[in-house]
Amino acid sequence: MRIVCLGSGNVAWHLSAAFKQSGSEIVQVWSRDLRHAEELALAVHADPIDNLDLLDKTADLFLIAVKDDAIPAVALYLKNLNGLVVHTSGATSIQALAGLNQYGVLYPLQTFSKQAYLDLTYCPMCLEANSDAAYTVLEKATSAIGKKIYKIDSEQREVLHVAAVFAANFSNQLYHLANTILQSRGLSFDLLRPLILEAATKVQSGLPFDVQTGPAVRNDQLTMERHLNTLQGNPELQNIYETISDSIKKTHL
Amino acid sequence: MRIVCLGSGNVAWHLSAAFKQSGSEIVQVWSRDLRHAEELALAVHADPIDNLDLLDKTADLFLIAVKDDAIPAVALYLKNLNGLVVHTSGATSIQALAGLNQYGVLYPLQTFSKQAYLDLTYCPMCLEANSDAAYTVLEKATSAIGKKIYKIDSEQREVLHVAAVFAANFSNQLYHLANTILQSRGLSFDLLRPLILEAATKVQSGLPFDVQTGPAVRNDQLTMERHLNTLQGNPELQNIYETISDSIKKTHL
Repeated sequence: MRIVCLGSGNVAWHLSAAFKQSGSEIVQVWSRDLRHAEELALAVHADPIDNLDLLDKTADLFLIAVKDDAIPAVALYLKNLNGLVVHTSGATSIQALAGLNQYGVLYPLQTFSKQAYLDLTYCPMCLEANSDAAYTVLEKATSAIGKKIYKIDSEQREVLHVAAVFAANFSNQLYHLANTILQSRGLSFDLLRPLILEAATKVQSGLPFDVQTGPAVRNDQLTMERHLNTLQGNPELQNIYETISDSIKKTHL
Repeated sequence: MRIVCLGSGNVAWHLSAAFKQSGSEIVQVWSRDLRHAEELALAVHADPIDNLDLLDKTADLFLIAVKDDAIPAVALYLKNLNGLVVHTSGATSIQALAGLNQYGVLYPLQTFSKQAYLDLTYCPMCLEANSDAAYTVLEKATSAIGKKIYKIDSEQREVLHVAAVFAANFSNQLYHLANTILQSRGLSFDLLRPLILEAATKVQSGLPFDVQTGPAVRNDQLTMERHLNTLQGNPELQNIYETISDSIKKTHL
């Protein structure tokens, strides 16, 4: 398969690399910033471009992995193609590509950083397309890089994206807040790393409801009051402590 | 080493099993509920008791792994011993054992469930003792089951425990809330499991501040407004969404 990658961010890097590794050819990498295009193009042996008029319109698959609000502008250059055009955004409706011939969504539900190598084999691939024919093409293409394929429409994907923000972005912020609490006493984040990993590991087979621990689920008022006291002088942390503890208590009432 | 285990909950199970496996002898398991004592005693080849007057006072180490508020009452039975008495609570001062001869704290900083086997080798072991001599004994005993030993006093441990609640209990609640969001549209929690694991894996080497992703850190107002809209009808989730998003925005200002 001949693929054009539009974008040079984390998702563009990981998808391009996975497709390249699976035997596809990445023919072009486009970015507004030529240096960014060049960096990724070098890694996947593609031609870098920063001008959408230079797009190779004969490619089979056009992967749009740009910032959400830039998708419609990029899509304008992808009309009247025979290839399949997909965006990769969890937060964007398939309708952002309306007006093209064959289009869809390939949303890899994962948190990507350029630094970290990531095997996409078991990353959920959430697919949607504007026709059964387009879906078949998309499913076949995606199966080259991932084993976990889900058919998810735009409305479901919106909900899924919100859930992903809770599960990953918000958890990460809690890790960060925990680290600030440690730093205030000169303690190392290393103390929490095994705990964080085990908490995430426990829900790989179990459900979070079933594995909850800590003072809130036991409704241990004394400990919660002492914790709030420890957080004195930091109303933001106290507020988050109370908000999430209340949520846990309500969940396990 | 000859060890008496007081308690039969998750921490009691994991520590007893680890000590047993390292070659120590668990001589007794005490629990208020004899059946619980029997269950654990069977697993570690110990004698089960439910009467503290029957304690083997010649043991070298007395592990108190009971509910926090029961520690002082159990400690009353451990006076005038030559052995080392430690509690295992993250939320309890060493002073809960004041009046004993040799005492301290062995706080394994991890989230324990009875179901899940857990290798304690790399679990942070947070130690404190009432004298240098007692600390030396405690450190030597602990090194048989864990390689990550930290000297943490009661004040630091209090802070550490709050941080652990943020990092593990609160994260787990976010996983749960994410699951309720998915369930509302018939979507499987499987969709989020790889994401959750990767988010925790990323902070094993990096710092959470450096790996944050999502709409809040990008200050992507449009997406955040749409997310709040998706959560319409659920003011609790909307409140948590706004609270944590504000915290992320403030952190990355």
